[in-house]
Amino acid sequence: MIKPRTPPGVMELLPRDQIAFQQMLDTIRRNFERFGFLPIETPVFELSEVLLTKSGGETERQVYFVQSTGALANAAESGGATPEMALRFDLTVPLARYVAEHEHELSFPFRRYQMQRVYRGERAQRGRFREFYQCDIDVIGKDALSVRYDAELPAVIFAVFSELAIGKFTIQLNNRRLMRGYFESLGVADAALQMAVLREVDKLDKRGADHVRETLTGEGFGLSGEVVEKILGFVQIRSTGHADALARLDALGQGGEDLNLGVAELRQVLEAVKALGVPETHYALNFSIARGLDYYTGTVYETLLDDYPQIGSICSGGRYENLASHYTKSRLPGVGISIGLTRLFWQLREAGLVDTAESCVQVLVSQMDEARLPAYLAIASELRAGGLNTEVQLEPRKLARQFQYADRAGIRFVVIVGEDEEARGVVSVKDLRRAEQFEVARGDLARTLKVELEQARAMGAASDPAS
Amino acid sequence: MIKPRTPPGVMELLPRDQIAFQQMLDTIRRNFERFGFLPIETPVFELSEVLLTKSGGETERQVYFVQSTGALANAAESGGATPEMALRFDLTVPLARYVAEHEHELSFPFRRYQMQRVYRGERAQRGRFREFYQCDIDVIGKDALSVRYDAELPAVIFAVFSELAIGKFTIQLNNRRLMRGYFESLGVADAALQMAVLREVDKLDKRGADHVRETLTGEGFGLSGEVVEKILGFVQIRSTGHADALARLDALGQGGEDLNLGVAELRQVLEAVKALGVPETHYALNFSIARGLDYYTGTVYETLLDDYPQIGSICSGGRYENLASHYTKSRLPGVGISIGLTRLFWQLREAGLVDTAESCVQVLVSQMDEARLPAYLAIASELRAGGLNTEVQLEPRKLARQFQYADRAGIRFVVIVGEDEEARGVVSVKDLRRAEQFEVARGDLARTLKVELEQARAMGAASDPAS
Repeated sequence: MIKPRTPPGVMELLPRDQIAFQQMLDTIRRNFERFGFLPIETPVFELSEVLLTKSGGETERQVYFVQSTGALANAAESGGATPEMALRFDLTVPLARYVAEHEHELSFPFRRYQMQRVYRGERAQRGRFREFYQCDIDVIGKDALSVRYDAELPAVIFAVFSELAIGKFTIQLNNRRLMRGYFESLGVADAALQMAVLREVDKLDKRGADHVRETLTGEGFGLSGEVVEKILGFVQIRSTGHADALARLDALGQGGEDLNLGVAELRQVLEAVKALGVPETHYALNFSIARGLDYYTGTVYETLLDDYPQIGSICSGGRYENLASHYTKSRLPGVGISIGLTRLFWQLREAGLVDTAESCVQVLVSQMDEARLPAYLAIASELRAGGLNTEVQLEPRKLARQFQYADRAGIRFVVIVGEDEEARGVVSVKDLRRAEQFEVARGDLARTLKVELEQARAMGAASDPAS
Repeated sequence: MIKPRTPPGVMELLPRDQIAFQQMLDTIRRNFERFGFLPIETPVFELSEVLLTKSGGETERQVYFVQSTGALANAAESGGATPEMALRFDLTVPLARYVAEHEHELSFPFRRYQMQRVYRGERAQRGRFREFYQCDIDVIGKDALSVRYDAELPAVIFAVFSELAIGKFTIQLNNRRLMRGYFESLGVADAALQMAVLREVDKLDKRGADHVRETLTGEGFGLSGEVVEKILGFVQIRSTGHADALARLDALGQGGEDLNLGVAELRQVLEAVKALGVPETHYALNFSIARGLDYYTGTVYETLLDDYPQIGSICSGGRYENLASHYTKSRLPGVGISIGLTRLFWQLREAGLVDTAESCVQVLVSQMDEARLPAYLAIASELRAGGLNTEVQLEPRKLARQFQYADRAGIRFVVIVGEDEEARGVVSVKDLRRAEQFEVARGDLARTLKVELEQARAMGAASDPAS
């Protein structure tokens, strides 16, 4: 007998949690499609040569290699060449490979969404996953891509998290070019130095201002106290409301080309975000956001839950200069965001912010009388044809136990038909959510339950705390 | 520069094909849920010890092992122990592990669906995939599971393939117990001999009756000519219609316990399939179906496209005695079916049976006049709020090229607003599917397009060739 268990570092859910998770995936996908993004899926494994273009680094240390039985046997003999294939560790490298491979079959700007699992050999630790979902959208241009595309993504983020209804959130915006320009205006012009400073500044929340101040004025950096104060003042800027955001940009004044361009881009993003109907309570400038320092080059995004900042960013991304330089000579600039749904779901559950979902099964046709089973099957067929997810109690069991089962499973309606109901051409329905029972003419059953469920859905949407 | 390419043996799709594939996945999932099945997902990798409980065999030769970088380095030193993890090669072993692991948290009968990719190190060959989707449902009982559950699965198969609308199909039914009983009645009582005979009989289509006859009367088997004729007659039985199916069962007469029980089970399945509304044109007895000879023990299913029998079974499964004997002492009988969607999609495409899907994007808000972009963004927001998947033309481009783009992408509606439309409070809409243009009051736009799309969907359902 072998003990049944999963490998460590994966999140496996019981059905009711899986339903809640699936509803989040569906909501994200629906909103991605709402904004005109197209689906792609890529294989879970890529050729190692293709996947691991950057030598060394954190990524390669965390990668999982894949070998067939035959390849494994050969490797044991030949002694440790890199296996031919590896599991993807994000969706960005597969996207780069996909776009470069299919470049001449795609329309640009190419707007794609992709929601698949990725794999990282993380150290086993609570809340760290070795297998997790990423839900990504990116827009990829050919040669050039207007900043207008950067402005659409906050509208997508707003739509997704409003509908997910996990609490009030704020989309934080910054621009790497603006940052670079501002640093230049302080005489910190060297790119490597800027990156080092930003890396220190990134530790503000963890280590505190005093520590960062000390480091930046210390030997390694040797910045003047005045410059450091300006940097710390800058990175602590947060806007409140649309007008304030524009005023904060104005207050930066004129500077070098980078600063001016960065300010202009961010202003354009803010204006378009407003035109797309994102309420000004849900976006703000945050000049501390740098993200993947050597990757992003323009707009950058993070999204924080106002009441749970400790969860960290729930949706991040930004603008990059060139997606696929390892695979093609074409210049493919892009902008994208990513939601790490497995980790988010885990954190929301830890914080008590996801309810156990109702079942995806909406009706149980109970079995009151075994001889009437053909009638129960026919009722179930009618309900299914009417668009209701329906289970039939196929085995005889006490009615009380049937109700108990439906209740535990999160099934809302139990349909009951006995001799009396059949004689009168009606059906009894127990609504477990409202704890009430009612009768309905047999012919009206599917329509009635459908209306009830749609009302519940509409009310759910109306009580959405984010809207 | 590295050549961007996938590993061999995977199916990667361009967006419009991905949309068609995704629609099939959605249809399958919707119908699985309609019948009260609950979703689960399991990790792509399992512990090798858990996954590979059966030693040797085809399965183990085709498995992909997974190793982190660290484990790989250690393996190179220590020389070739079995890696700790392996990719799942089907969804049945993970289901067995899941049910055994969560036995005390699940309600039985446990009705689950699972739609994930599985991995097999197949020989590289056209139409053979190393990564492919399986869409499975199973009902797992504890200690016992009534044959009534066997009867539900043909109703699910009917619902799924009717809605997929890939042509007329017939669900073929048989019962392994009935088969065994019939063989016993011919004096072929030994289980190993029965299995060997069935394996020969399975070659009927490939090798022809003469070859099979010769083998079975030959030295290895030594059956009499009379017995062989009866076997060949039996396995060639196909029913046409419900009454004929019942008559075929009656014609088998009374026999030993297995035959009688098998006949009774199959009769019960047929009656319930009828009560569930499956038209009698869509199911039939086929006494040649044996499937996984040592695995299935009762009802077995295959599904054939009437006009494309060469595609083989598009949905198969059956009843098994015990799901998880490697992991638990509990007896967990079950019944299930599986659709290998990647291979099916590939075959349907080869046969010209899947159309290129319309885009999941339904509307393109064109850009006639750059200065009106804020108005275009606002229109797009209204359309999205009204439930329409909408892309905005963000960059200036000739209107003709915008239409061309929408046409190629499969976007049905292009919305046009210029000075004239704005002055009159209307919006022009080009319907690319019908090749006609119309005007609608700005305030009615979302509602009007939604109605058009719903009509198209309803008409699509009405013209469904399977219904």
